Amino acid sequence: MIPIQPDRFLEDLHALRRFGASGVGKGVQRPAYSPPDIEARDWLAGRMEAAGLAPRFDPMGSLFGIAGERSLLLGSHSDSQPEGGWLDGALGVIAALEIARAAREAGGPAISAVSFQDEEGRFGVTTGSAAWAGALDRERAQTLVDSDGVTLAEARAAMGARLGDWLDPAQFTGFVEMHIEQGPVLDRTAGKIGVVEAIVGIRDMVVQFEGQQNHAGTTPMALRQDAFQGLVAFAGLLNTRLAEVVTPDTVWTIGHVALHPNAHSIVPGRAAFSVQWRDGDAGRLDRMEAIVRDTAQEVAETHGLACSFGPMLGVPPVAMDAGLRAALAEAAEAQVPGLWRPMPSGALHDASNAARLMPAAMLFVPSIGGISHDFAEDTDEADLVTGLQVMADAVARIAS
Amino acid sequence: MIPIQPDRFLEDLHALRRFGASGVGKGVQRPAYSPPDIEARDWLAGRMEAAGLAPRFDPMGSLFGIAGERSLLLGSHSDSQPEGGWLDGALGVIAALEIARAAREAGGPAISAVSFQDEEGRFGVTTGSAAWAGALDRERAQTLVDSDGVTLAEARAAMGARLGDWLDPAQFTGFVEMHIEQGPVLDRTAGKIGVVEAIVGIRDMVVQFEGQQNHAGTTPMALRQDAFQGLVAFAGLLNTRLAEVVTPDTVWTIGHVALHPNAHSIVPGRAAFSVQWRDGDAGRLDRMEAIVRDTAQEVAETHGLACSFGPMLGVPPVAMDAGLRAALAEAAEAQVPGLWRPMPSGALHDASNAARLMPAAMLFVPSIGGISHDFAEDTDEADLVTGLQVMADAVARIAS
Repeated sequence: MIPIQPDRFLEDLHALRRFGASGVGKGVQRPAYSPPDIEARDWLAGRMEAAGLAPRFDPMGSLFGIAGERSLLLGSHSDSQPEGGWLDGALGVIAALEIARAAREAGGPAISAVSFQDEEGRFGVTTGSAAWAGALDRERAQTLVDSDGVTLAEARAAMGARLGDWLDPAQFTGFVEMHIEQGPVLDRTAGKIGVVEAIVGIRDMVVQFEGQQNHAGTTPMALRQDAFQGLVAFAGLLNTRLAEVVTPDTVWTIGHVALHPNAHSIVPGRAAFSVQWRDGDAGRLDRMEAIVRDTAQEVAETHGLACSFGPMLGVPPVAMDAGLRAALAEAAEAQVPGLWRPMPSGALHDASNAARLMPAAMLFVPSIGGISHDFAEDTDEADLVTGLQVMADAVARIAS
Repeated sequence: MIPIQPDRFLEDLHALRRFGASGVGKGVQRPAYSPPDIEARDWLAGRMEAAGLAPRFDPMGSLFGIAGERSLLLGSHSDSQPEGGWLDGALGVIAALEIARAAREAGGPAISAVSFQDEEGRFGVTTGSAAWAGALDRERAQTLVDSDGVTLAEARAAMGARLGDWLDPAQFTGFVEMHIEQGPVLDRTAGKIGVVEAIVGIRDMVVQFEGQQNHAGTTPMALRQDAFQGLVAFAGLLNTRLAEVVTPDTVWTIGHVALHPNAHSIVPGRAAFSVQWRDGDAGRLDRMEAIVRDTAQEVAETHGLACSFGPMLGVPPVAMDAGLRAALAEAAEAQVPGLWRPMPSGALHDASNAARLMPAAMLFVPSIGGISHDFAEDTDEADLVTGLQVMADAVARIAS
């Protein structure tokens, strides 16, 4: 057993939230490459060094604490949303620090730690780990632009001489990431641990219905080609038809709607809307896509509308490594018997990218009320410590 | 029979469209109080004077051509939408001019003409006739503001010394307005004349569903309180339920939708949307309102949403005068037997306001493709002349 110290872990976790503290609850404002983000990384590099790990920044600004020639890598990210919570990413980084530190104090196994840069996507999606893993072209990454028009190359310059070379992934035997669930499932079911089976794939497409913009007073119902009524019919049919192919873990969302001209007294001539669906199984994502396309075309025909589809965006599902998952499941059953569950991750994480380079796995702890990406994000400290214990137990099974 | 001259009528109608000509088709840009609007009114005052009518501007800038101590009033408006057609309003004004002129040439009956100001609502809704009729408080009208922040009082100042006193409505025996239909019904049915039974009442209300904004990946379908899905269910049920109480002339529209935060990856926490319905019968408007409110509340309950209603806006339906309608119907049957129909006006018109002061009625001519409020708005000249003939025939029946 690795001799973790829960108090020291919680102390470091609270220390990290001082960087970019929002002053609202425990919230933080620590977007990638901002002064608080860089200060937090400098503090973290110092804590790594004190723990006997060699701090190394890669060209994106991801910070590794290296334990030796060959090691298991633990971690997550320490950048935050512009208005974020104290645990999203930070939990996995400090848990990695504590387990690596405790293992070093105990004379092994060799555990390294990492805080990836820009997981929250100031410039992209999980940008730092994506560039490391080759999921994002490293040259192209430098040209990415944030919402204020700043390029990643310009923002990264603030990290100056800290930045070093890319780390060779071959030195790591695997990657394990602990994270808050960011959803309500564990909280609602009084579960303590989620062992992630797969990080879901996402498909996201804009659908547009084009009808006839008309006066809402002088155009009889029978002569209308109302693009919004097309959306209503589509959304209703879609729910019915998707129900035939989904599992309870599958999700789909119409989150963005733009009507034109969007006026009380004008029959909508155009409705453009997003349809997004997520599932851990690529075949199911395909079947859902066929239903989305067929239903939209059918509704367009019956409503006298033209239908067009935007580009099909998304990421494929990523299965977690079976061996690492088994170790996490065994550790969870040993520490909190009956209070853990296998589950998908509905959100993307750095582990999606790490899985391209090495065996990777994740575990979740509960999010109170399912709240995340908000100053109010929180988890009971007892649950944080349970997560640390399960992860330490699993690491001992994996690395010894 | 009043000896109208169709060529002179068409010549004046084309002359009017030179003021503010858009250069695109026959379109015009002649919003209330703009230089082209005022120039057009000065030209029109000259044409009235040449016809033996006494031009008088009221305090809003509505222009009357007075035929004598007691007369029938005909007319519409000569201001246009910012990007409008050549016939919307102008048709009724020039038809009034021609019939008043021809009647004067024939030695009677006494017919006056009017071009109301700001029917198109730069500052309100049918602003000039509403102020005259007391539907809009005359002091308050001066404080109305356009979309650029200009007050009506400031805009009106451009008309300077032209402006005179309010005209006493008691001098008029009634009001008849000819207008393009601005909808597709006559055009689709090859009808030549619509005799308006009522100007529909309008009710317009914003409904808001409030659910729970959530991550679109981590929130299982069963735990969502998706405000947009509430709107989908509401809109579908509303169509089914309204079908039980409406006539083929009733219309209802969801034209404006605002989701919050309106992002692909976030379950909508709020949906605010307009529901507008129009019918010529106040009792039916009431029954529809009850269905709208009950359905929204029922859907909110079944979907775990909060429901709130904005203020109930609208105008009551205005029945056209039975005697004037009968004269229009007799004239239509005499001129174009079988090619006319009684119908509602789904749009508001100056006749709605005039009906507060005196017996009022309207007739429609076809709009090609139902297009209006657009440079492309048009009507066959033969149909314009048919409208003029039916109106002159009716006026002879009414005023002789």
